[in-house]
Amino acid sequence: MPRRSRNVDLTQVSEWDDGHLFRKDDYLAAEEPLEIRVGDDPLSVTMRTPGHDRELAAGFLFTEGLIQSREQILKLDNAEPQDGTNHRNVIATELAPEAAPDFAKMKRHFFAASSCGICGKASIDSIRSRLLAAPNADFRLDAELLVQMPDVLRSSQDVFQRTGGLHAAALFDARGKLLVLREDIGRHNAVDKVIGWALLEGRMPLSDSVLLVSGRGGFEIVQKAIVAGVPVVASVSAPSSLAVQLARELRLTLIGFLRGRRFVIYAGEERVAGPNTNKVIRG
Amino acid sequence: MPRRSRNVDLTQVSEWDDGHLFRKDDYLAAEEPLEIRVGDDPLSVTMRTPGHDRELAAGFLFTEGLIQSREQILKLDNAEPQDGTNHRNVIATELAPEAAPDFAKMKRHFFAASSCGICGKASIDSIRSRLLAAPNADFRLDAELLVQMPDVLRSSQDVFQRTGGLHAAALFDARGKLLVLREDIGRHNAVDKVIGWALLEGRMPLSDSVLLVSGRGGFEIVQKAIVAGVPVVASVSAPSSLAVQLARELRLTLIGFLRGRRFVIYAGEERVAGPNTNKVIRG
Repeated sequence: MPRRSRNVDLTQVSEWDDGHLFRKDDYLAAEEPLEIRVGDDPLSVTMRTPGHDRELAAGFLFTEGLIQSREQILKLDNAEPQDGTNHRNVIATELAPEAAPDFAKMKRHFFAASSCGICGKASIDSIRSRLLAAPNADFRLDAELLVQMPDVLRSSQDVFQRTGGLHAAALFDARGKLLVLREDIGRHNAVDKVIGWALLEGRMPLSDSVLLVSGRGGFEIVQKAIVAGVPVVASVSAPSSLAVQLARELRLTLIGFLRGRRFVIYAGEERVAGPNTNKVIRG
Repeated sequence: MPRRSRNVDLTQVSEWDDGHLFRKDDYLAAEEPLEIRVGDDPLSVTMRTPGHDRELAAGFLFTEGLIQSREQILKLDNAEPQDGTNHRNVIATELAPEAAPDFAKMKRHFFAASSCGICGKASIDSIRSRLLAAPNADFRLDAELLVQMPDVLRSSQDVFQRTGGLHAAALFDARGKLLVLREDIGRHNAVDKVIGWALLEGRMPLSDSVLLVSGRGGFEIVQKAIVAGVPVVASVSAPSSLAVQLARELRLTLIGFLRGRRFVIYAGEERVAGPNTNKVIRG
């Protein structure tokens, strides 16, 4: 395993331990900005952990509704080297004319997609209108497989184990098999990377997959999952009120506090299968 | 304590516990979008936990470099009610002419401030150019006070205790006294809220304060702290590579993994005082 790579930095630090200072080497999760360009125009800049940048850009374009298919991405590469710019921190894209005919309009759409969230109801309607299909109503996931996923996630987190500082997102299939895992200093980026991977691999929609995230299940995570057709989103921490509302209205299964042999079902309970899961005890 | 308020929602969920399902009530951290307007123009939309929205807007304007003082905010209030918009999710501001003479230019500046980060060095130079003053070189913090701060933070986190789902940011003085604590579903928002509080209270620059954050110490957190003049940033988790680089170049003290009676000093060790802290043992 390389000691220093594009996603891990090695540096010297001091550790204070009960009154004593020790000098030691420490690994840091790398954080650098990534600019996504459409044609000559900058679309967004995000702070991310370098690596899988093409997936990040593809996933971002898809989950934010700028493209609906892999075929609409005509070009997806690092920018050409130029003076004063780290071209590895720029992904230059060209989109099919029907996807992005007018960049100014695209930017307006982009802002509108966020700002219509000022009224939660309008925001949910907007997401609904962008769906290729409703989340797979027939998908079933065995609770016994679900409770094993966080261990798989954690043991596969290469960078986290060295730095203690990264979020992860992973896709699993209905038999609990890990399909892909990506780490990033930003939670949304990790999700965009796994969805971008699926898009570039020709696996859309993800109607037989579970998305597991290491942090909270917020509105934007659930939104991205729904756009990609994922029927089950699970997180090891708490969801937000708006994430629960969105999941309930669009019939996604939303799991939180997935820890040990316990979890909380916030929406879409019918997809969770297994012994005793239909015997509800009223607390 | 109210069971349901603007920042906490109550809902019914199912808990799966080792094969059995229990129905129970659960508290959720509220998440709603906030639009910040300058004049008639929308400047940004952020997903946030409602509450202290004026502080959030003021802190955002300040830490993003749009204003340099409290006096440049001429108006800071919820928008007037209009059809189809939740006016409580809009903060309408008016800025002094010298702060925002040209909104189009401001937006360009805004984007430029982020995108110059494509080259890390240019980004750090840009932040340096916006500083009112270098971080206070004479500030000293007793390590014994520092290790007590996370307990104070956690025990003061009202919403977190009910929902398990919120980030927190807090300011402490050099004697370890908690000045202000704010919770938000977004880490950056929590920081903007405490800095906005300080701005509105006339406490800028924060040259005798410690900023403690519940999550990671990333680049944007350190950037916001530096703009507000905070000399010490501490987090309970890992910093990123770019955060460490920024802290070292601009001489901020950056602490990570502040847990129990241990912490790691990534930059600015000279501000950490106390018995034995100058006896470095080479590991």
